Amino acid sequence: MRRDLIEFAANLASLAVVLGSLIKRRRLKRKPMSVKTIAVIVAMEAEAAPLIEHLGLKKQEQSPFAGPLPAVVFSGAVGDATVHVCTNGPARGFGVDSVGTVPAALTAYQACEALEPDLLVNAGTAGGFKAKGGVVGDVYLATAFKNHDRRIQIPGFDVYGVGAADAAACPNLRAAMGFKAGVVSTGNSLDCPDVDRDALAANDASVKEMEAAGIAHVAAMFDTPFIAVKAITDIVDGDKPTHDEFLQNLGAAAKALQAAVPKVLEFVAGKKLAEL
Amino acid sequence: MRRDLIEFAANLASLAVVLGSLIKRRRLKRKPMSVKTIAVIVAMEAEAAPLIEHLGLKKQEQSPFAGPLPAVVFSGAVGDATVHVCTNGPARGFGVDSVGTVPAALTAYQACEALEPDLLVNAGTAGGFKAKGGVVGDVYLATAFKNHDRRIQIPGFDVYGVGAADAAACPNLRAAMGFKAGVVSTGNSLDCPDVDRDALAANDASVKEMEAAGIAHVAAMFDTPFIAVKAITDIVDGDKPTHDEFLQNLGAAAKALQAAVPKVLEFVAGKKLAEL
Repeated sequence: MRRDLIEFAANLASLAVVLGSLIKRRRLKRKPMSVKTIAVIVAMEAEAAPLIEHLGLKKQEQSPFAGPLPAVVFSGAVGDATVHVCTNGPARGFGVDSVGTVPAALTAYQACEALEPDLLVNAGTAGGFKAKGGVVGDVYLATAFKNHDRRIQIPGFDVYGVGAADAAACPNLRAAMGFKAGVVSTGNSLDCPDVDRDALAANDASVKEMEAAGIAHVAAMFDTPFIAVKAITDIVDGDKPTHDEFLQNLGAAAKALQAAVPKVLEFVAGKKLAEL
Repeated sequence: MRRDLIEFAANLASLAVVLGSLIKRRRLKRKPMSVKTIAVIVAMEAEAAPLIEHLGLKKQEQSPFAGPLPAVVFSGAVGDATVHVCTNGPARGFGVDSVGTVPAALTAYQACEALEPDLLVNAGTAGGFKAKGGVVGDVYLATAFKNHDRRIQIPGFDVYGVGAADAAACPNLRAAMGFKAGVVSTGNSLDCPDVDRDALAANDASVKEMEAAGIAHVAAMFDTPFIAVKAITDIVDGDKPTHDEFLQNLGAAAKALQAAVPKVLEFVAGKKLAEL
């Protein structure tokens, strides 16, 4: 009788595990009708802090992500939606924020897997182009994502290297926000030597930054709609070196993000994807 | 009585889940005494195929990884160890192998999380340097990993950008194999403009490839010892364009890998990490 009981309990435990995995699979496959969960990926703590404060988000003391990823998640409500702002966290052994495509893609993968967002947003600071009418303090809503530092001159791989991906269609959001529109081009360097300048021109880039295309690579795997909001800290084709201008304008651009991103989140929260 | 039974079963199910998670946590924290599980990350299918065939590995039809990562895992035994060869898989929407640091880091993260390897190995083809005595067909065992395409001229971020990480100490493996030793430097492009050439020189690179430093970033998070074996397909400071030479020599270099990597795996399998 006792053995029966244990066997029954064990079977029930197995059944619970199978049911759990079926439910999860179902959840992953469902096509969300409206934007109930939003994950916002921000590379640097200094970029995210004003936004987190403005939205009154709370840090999740226990990371919701599998494994040792140093990403930090701040969660709360915006209108009818749950918003998670995820920073990449400090790079182990280097003591600085984990900027660039690799940490951004790792954070995006865990965010999509663990938080199951209906919409993925990348927010951050970026370089703009005088030739495209960009000025410091501008806010851009990306139209597409491309890489400008993955030059692979083999047919097929060349197109993969650029990795062009469209942003989620959001005509009503664009009209309501009035932000500038343009291609966001991603590379892992802050400077802009000729070889990058040529690739940025070929990409028709209005915005140069270091994460969005890495996140787009992950968003495509999960079929998660992806948009990006970028505030301009420096002018790539201007006369000042990027790193001086970047540090000088980081605070001001973070403030521009603090104003812009909540407006975006309030607009999209609870709306159907087709209404964006 | 029936309610008691159900409650007992439910409690047992909860207990099983808690115990399972404790066991997993313990496994993650344990310091392995010997190399029982090895994960080998290979970017391209063409690089991996001869190795998989030689080792008689079987494709895992159901991916052991969480989420939609297109990585493919081939598993089997080498001596006393279980070996998993993981390819990054095809890039969604582009129909080519997912080369570069982002896919490599994503695959490495899932491999470390799901397969819990005692040793992580990156094997693949690469560029060599005439100035460092490199010739096509050479096999290198990395001494360290650096990035040559992450130029961030802000104190602290500059060092993070290079992201130097030592390979796992393996003096006995080096002596037994007789491979060349050198710094493996990683970038997301196949070509080598002046700006990359300068960074490769600053990195003291003997090997130029597209994945290892992205994997090293992940290995550091998991505290997983990491080594890399690279076969030279082309000479970066030679007179032929990399992409011509690469395609011409890919098959030969894959054969060199097919010979070299099993020797490495047979040497390390079952050995204590301190004996490598």
